[in-house]
Amino acid sequence: MALIVQKYGGTSVGTVERIQNVAKKVIQTKNNGNDVVVVLSAMAGKTDRLIDMARLINKDPDPRELDVLLATGEQVSIALFSIACKTMGHDAQSFLGFQAQIMTDHRYGMARIHNIDTEEITQAIEQGKIVVIAGFQGMDEFGNITTLGRGGSDTTAVGLAAALNASVCEIYTDVEGVYTTDPNITKKARKLKYISYEEMLEMASMGAKVLHLRSVEFAVKYEVPLHVRSSFVEAEGTMVVKGDTRMEKVAVSAIAYNKNEARLTIIDVPDKPGIAALIFQPISDAGISVDMIIQNSSIHGTGMTDMTFTVAKDDYTKALNILKNVAGDIGAKDVQGDIHVAKVSAIGLNMRNHSGIASKMFSVLSEAGINIIMISTSEIKVSTLIHEDYTELAVRLLHNAFELDQDQPDFEL
Amino acid sequence: MALIVQKYGGTSVGTVERIQNVAKKVIQTKNNGNDVVVVLSAMAGKTDRLIDMARLINKDPDPRELDVLLATGEQVSIALFSIACKTMGHDAQSFLGFQAQIMTDHRYGMARIHNIDTEEITQAIEQGKIVVIAGFQGMDEFGNITTLGRGGSDTTAVGLAAALNASVCEIYTDVEGVYTTDPNITKKARKLKYISYEEMLEMASMGAKVLHLRSVEFAVKYEVPLHVRSSFVEAEGTMVVKGDTRMEKVAVSAIAYNKNEARLTIIDVPDKPGIAALIFQPISDAGISVDMIIQNSSIHGTGMTDMTFTVAKDDYTKALNILKNVAGDIGAKDVQGDIHVAKVSAIGLNMRNHSGIASKMFSVLSEAGINIIMISTSEIKVSTLIHEDYTELAVRLLHNAFELDQDQPDFEL
Repeated sequence: MALIVQKYGGTSVGTVERIQNVAKKVIQTKNNGNDVVVVLSAMAGKTDRLIDMARLINKDPDPRELDVLLATGEQVSIALFSIACKTMGHDAQSFLGFQAQIMTDHRYGMARIHNIDTEEITQAIEQGKIVVIAGFQGMDEFGNITTLGRGGSDTTAVGLAAALNASVCEIYTDVEGVYTTDPNITKKARKLKYISYEEMLEMASMGAKVLHLRSVEFAVKYEVPLHVRSSFVEAEGTMVVKGDTRMEKVAVSAIAYNKNEARLTIIDVPDKPGIAALIFQPISDAGISVDMIIQNSSIHGTGMTDMTFTVAKDDYTKALNILKNVAGDIGAKDVQGDIHVAKVSAIGLNMRNHSGIASKMFSVLSEAGINIIMISTSEIKVSTLIHEDYTELAVRLLHNAFELDQDQPDFEL
Repeated sequence: MALIVQKYGGTSVGTVERIQNVAKKVIQTKNNGNDVVVVLSAMAGKTDRLIDMARLINKDPDPRELDVLLATGEQVSIALFSIACKTMGHDAQSFLGFQAQIMTDHRYGMARIHNIDTEEITQAIEQGKIVVIAGFQGMDEFGNITTLGRGGSDTTAVGLAAALNASVCEIYTDVEGVYTTDPNITKKARKLKYISYEEMLEMASMGAKVLHLRSVEFAVKYEVPLHVRSSFVEAEGTMVVKGDTRMEKVAVSAIAYNKNEARLTIIDVPDKPGIAALIFQPISDAGISVDMIIQNSSIHGTGMTDMTFTVAKDDYTKALNILKNVAGDIGAKDVQGDIHVAKVSAIGLNMRNHSGIASKMFSVLSEAGINIIMISTSEIKVSTLIHEDYTELAVRLLHNAFELDQDQPDFEL
């Protein structure tokens, strides 16, 4: 008997009728001889409505109390779902974060799961129950309610799959799987049968919104096989698995993009050891995440350099102000920035073996007259920062150039 | 420094704006030098909307999961309220039932509070925080969420006031206090300055809906002074206190009524010891509460008697069917019933010293041609069952006859 963790997103449980449909699917899985643990998100739109209410009182609501508020969304879903299961004649039991012993740190709104004590869950499974768990929420060591950040239900599901040693963690969502790129940009985008954890990590960090970044980190760490699929169609989705078992190597698996980028450049910085820390420490202290970073080589003889990096668009003004202060302190000449930028990346696990990927990317973009503002590379990714107006064009051109509309070789599992 | 428990009902926290107004009032109380523990209900209409959702799935939803669902109502209120307090510059902390250690039995939907461990609450008070507690909900010994039944937030408040040894428990509601009778029936109804616990108990059990019955039982048991008042006007409300300190004794304090009554009569029952148990055990086993009970004296020589009692209108059909079965078993002749009845009662703590109350009541009603179907008396109450069409008339006549529109003598406190 296999143990399957299934996670259903907000759209999948968006109405009472959809909740009933999901209950049918889950009971089917159970009747096929599997144990099932279900993780649910809040009904679509619910979390936004709760945030809107809180913001009527305060634009920046107290984070502890905001988590208490938001946690009600998933609580409604699991209660209605369990009522539906029992109505259909199958025993079920809901667990809130604290009841499932999903223990997190204290960071309200972006808590990380430390530990899950599965004793009570396992007992309910052994009693033949469908176990229904509130996604997105946990409890810190003092009994405070915490939430895991947007998309956090994925992480709840993967965390549970790891803790319960489940055969697979199925992520049911409103798309049919992971695509070679955003199907809204090109109809040539193709659903991937398989993608490696590492590639998925890069996709998630690009804001591809298929999976919560932290959930993929969990999946890698505990080697939880993920299956991303639609709750509305029966077709198989995309398996996220260990990547080095692929039979035939492809260089590029997907083209991803992220419009939520803004560029900042600090000009004529004295090129001394420790200067990077002086620039980035105050940025980090302000809770701002930095994505791409490039430091130009020191111009010979001047001892000066430029430092360029990107942050999320929302953090741009805050980062710019910090940087202006820092510039004075460290004797830099000027600070410049631009919010009209986007990042377009080619992602592929075997890119390290294909030195031509980066140069091909650059020539495709430059032939189309798209100026590359910044470049950064990792072992499995080449990212370019371009003007945001060219995002869709760049994605389509690169998708074609790397022949991502062609069939993908199978993994060897 | 006094410790005050304040409970605000659903109407008082019915909108974000009202929540902010309540926060202002609470901060005012705090700034006047008191410690404040606030107990909140769900926003008006919220609980009904949640029940409606559950009933879309099942007319009779699983009670455990229904409690998980309903508990979200108060959770939303306390989170928004705490955000409002902190926005106004005062530290506050919300507590859900499980966080406040409000321990109950296992009876979902009508749980009773067993114990409240106030350690964490006391600590928060000592830190100068406004403590904000979800009404209506608790946790059983296995960590399941329970709810206390409609109006249960009153009981949470009184329970906390008892456990914390508070100076007073203020119940803020949408009426200005406890009235001599329903102001919707007669404009002569007068707000009482004081009412005794015992009288309030009778009022609550009559369905007067000012206070949850169980909360009054708690208040009596732990001698918690209650102050029932409006959250919309500043005027003093009604103090619910120990009754035997009143200076001048009034015979009747209030006229109450209850239209949620139905009558059942089992005719020609053999008048043998143990016969009442044979009738009422199956009624009780079906979870039906019996209110008034009257057994006619055995008709001389026949050894037969009639047994009449009342139940809630909703339970009428179920009770009638049970009774028809029982009638066969015990050799009774027939079962009759009537759902078009109502109970009208005169309530007064010192009634025991005024033998004329009952006879005055009967003559007032009979002069108006109102037929009395049943009569039951307790030490502080005379109840009459009449046709429901005459309810308002009877209430007005009795309110006049007992001069309840006249000023009430003060209590000696």
